Amino acid sequence: MERADVVIVGASAAGLSAALTIKRNKPDAKVVLFRKVEKTPVPCGIPYIYGTLKDVKKDIIPDEHFSSMGIDIRVAEVKKIDKEKKEVFYNGDSINYNKLLIATGSIPFVPPIEGIELGNVYAIEKNPKDLQVIEDKLGGATDIVIIGGGFIGVEMSEQIAKLKGDSANITIIEMLPHCLMAAIEEEFCIEAEEQLKKLGVNIFTNSQVVKLEGKDRVQKVILKDGKWIKADVVIIGVGAAPNVEIAQKNNIPFDKRGGIIVNRFMETEVKDIYAAGDCVQKFSFITGKPAGIRLASVAAYEGIVAGNNIIGNRVENKGAVGAFSTKIGDVALGSAGFTRISCERENIAYVAGEFVGPDKHPATLPDTYKDMKAILIFRKDNGKIIGGHIKGSSMAGEMVNIIAVAIQAGLTAEELYLMQIATHPLLTGSPIAHHINRAAGDAYFKLKNL
Amino acid sequence: MERADVVIVGASAAGLSAALTIKRNKPDAKVVLFRKVEKTPVPCGIPYIYGTLKDVKKDIIPDEHFSSMGIDIRVAEVKKIDKEKKEVFYNGDSINYNKLLIATGSIPFVPPIEGIELGNVYAIEKNPKDLQVIEDKLGGATDIVIIGGGFIGVEMSEQIAKLKGDSANITIIEMLPHCLMAAIEEEFCIEAEEQLKKLGVNIFTNSQVVKLEGKDRVQKVILKDGKWIKADVVIIGVGAAPNVEIAQKNNIPFDKRGGIIVNRFMETEVKDIYAAGDCVQKFSFITGKPAGIRLASVAAYEGIVAGNNIIGNRVENKGAVGAFSTKIGDVALGSAGFTRISCERENIAYVAGEFVGPDKHPATLPDTYKDMKAILIFRKDNGKIIGGHIKGSSMAGEMVNIIAVAIQAGLTAEELYLMQIATHPLLTGSPIAHHINRAAGDAYFKLKNL
Repeated sequence: MERADVVIVGASAAGLSAALTIKRNKPDAKVVLFRKVEKTPVPCGIPYIYGTLKDVKKDIIPDEHFSSMGIDIRVAEVKKIDKEKKEVFYNGDSINYNKLLIATGSIPFVPPIEGIELGNVYAIEKNPKDLQVIEDKLGGATDIVIIGGGFIGVEMSEQIAKLKGDSANITIIEMLPHCLMAAIEEEFCIEAEEQLKKLGVNIFTNSQVVKLEGKDRVQKVILKDGKWIKADVVIIGVGAAPNVEIAQKNNIPFDKRGGIIVNRFMETEVKDIYAAGDCVQKFSFITGKPAGIRLASVAAYEGIVAGNNIIGNRVENKGAVGAFSTKIGDVALGSAGFTRISCERENIAYVAGEFVGPDKHPATLPDTYKDMKAILIFRKDNGKIIGGHIKGSSMAGEMVNIIAVAIQAGLTAEELYLMQIATHPLLTGSPIAHHINRAAGDAYFKLKNL
Repeated sequence: MERADVVIVGASAAGLSAALTIKRNKPDAKVVLFRKVEKTPVPCGIPYIYGTLKDVKKDIIPDEHFSSMGIDIRVAEVKKIDKEKKEVFYNGDSINYNKLLIATGSIPFVPPIEGIELGNVYAIEKNPKDLQVIEDKLGGATDIVIIGGGFIGVEMSEQIAKLKGDSANITIIEMLPHCLMAAIEEEFCIEAEEQLKKLGVNIFTNSQVVKLEGKDRVQKVILKDGKWIKADVVIIGVGAAPNVEIAQKNNIPFDKRGGIIVNRFMETEVKDIYAAGDCVQKFSFITGKPAGIRLASVAAYEGIVAGNNIIGNRVENKGAVGAFSTKIGDVALGSAGFTRISCERENIAYVAGEFVGPDKHPATLPDTYKDMKAILIFRKDNGKIIGGHIKGSSMAGEMVNIIAVAIQAGLTAEELYLMQIATHPLLTGSPIAHHINRAAGDAYFKLKNL
């Protein structure tokens, strides 16, 4: 009987980062990692297959790095677990484990709309074969509708617009007043929409799809208000649900909506079985309450927490922060933690500090993004940062990580205002006008003057 | 007799940020700011006048923003202070102050080398007129020698190389084994030198200038080992000394090498006189010992600390961190806090964590910088980060600020390893391979396994 120190089911962000963690520290451990798919796509890279990479094969996480560390990657679906004998079954074979990690990720949520089963209607599956089908279909499409204006929907629309130019009508349909609004400050959502419009994307917000119509293949998308949109391809990007199939089949406690139940060490309620990533229940770093943040960076984090606990380093999951970035047209956006709207929803009294300034100094330098903006959100009661949002040049991608770290470190407006920051003409705002310092300063004075 | 709430002498990073701080919180305060020069150049932008902006006028901090806040900027040199009557004298006139801030900055250090007084030998003065002279002289020069391979010397060489292309011989002379070595990890210094060489810059390291020769104007630069280099323009960039003239003339205690003596509230030993920026004595955030870090971002920070204390917010200067970034050729470099060499010099036992990976994900994306590298340095005794260095794409400019914040927040390798970080294909490394997480993880395991 084959025996592994650690068996991991699932080879995306959580599974891979757990495997790396374990082998980094215990190079002799036998780590066997199962995945259903032939190759693992880079999940966040999927939209960029269509307008930038133009090849599904370019969006693959290479196995070599993991194999070279001795991680044994096997392509097979694991369905059955014998919890007593500590054995998993795959392809008619089986393997014993000392520790098991479930990292089966999520499945795209498919809303129960009439006609959703029609041809040419696609959810985004993290499987190269399915991604290739979408690429093939987009090639000949002239009327493309994207249902959902979250990150995946917005990025898909932007990339499809880049791919198709004026040769197709591209429409995005979002239920909320603006795209990206679940994660980003409203004014930045509007900016993202402006960028999409510049690329020719039609945007319907406050809109809901009630029906898809067509013969075999989709032809029309019908909205709640009676409007309809011509469609020969429909892409669904309305979120993801935890993939709990393996837990369900093997009696590992889970919550249908939230995911597999784990403690702060990523242990399930079954001895020696851990779970991490999109398949597990999450809670908010900020409120401690259940949260629906399914994100590769949270999954990677949980994989690291699980991996450490599996090898005996007792580290604790502190909850999901929700730190995002994206680039739409010429504008990069970053977001970490709470927005003003989420503060209001959670009844957290807050003060927001703002700053607008160039991303370089002097602003006469070539390619200066003149009105880069930061909005930082601090709790009124203790002055600690709980959210931050950046709009501007690509530097937003790492600037938001200053905010993410500040949130996790529990820094106050005063501390962030009084941070020494490296600045350089070509790379940042000026020493007297760095966005993070100045927005924190704005909030610091607002808090002082309350 | 005219009377101001606050008089500030000096209008660069420290003076301006103090003025902004005071007016932001006390809009009715009368703040009068004196400067000797007609216009304030962006100090860190000076090298970019020559190869990028190509116009001294483009490297000016605009007065409008400050004037619109009601800051009264006057062009005049303040030499005399009546400390009893709390009065400063300028242009035959005078003004009373409630609080006075000295922010007179630094003056370029000019080494006592034979021939240094020859024509066409220039130190970098923060004065548009002097900067214009250099621009004019560079126009006709064919043999340009830069003495000093710190940030200013390296950036000047790079920009002059961009300006002159193959039409001039550009040589940089540095005493240490590598350029930038006082601030940056050695392997990254070598990378910067490679970039300079690609641009055609000749580099003499471990080299010292002993003499300049010429008739009236410089013609030769003589090195200690007897070599000589042809020169029609020499630029000196070997550091800056505190400008303590006003303190010296008015009996405000100062240290000739270190600068004006201040406490942690930026108060000099004279009642109601504060000082901040390059003109004051510094100490290290990391060791608490005197430090020679003269940097616009430190000056801006001290200006904010001074400004707050002037208006009655008791905030403390925690010492200079030393956070830098630059871009040389195609490579951006960031550095915060200690290098391995500075740990050794200070007898601090440390562990360094490293990670190399692409700046985007997947690495098949256009313009991916494949081997972006982070080196993070943690104390062995408590695991806290005290230094960090990044080499790679321009994103290094804000990545180093994650490190700067982590140092100031006192984060450990474990905390930084377990940070949730926003990632995006076009903007950052992947969620399982973000440089900061992974380099911190490397150090975490090294510390665990000690």
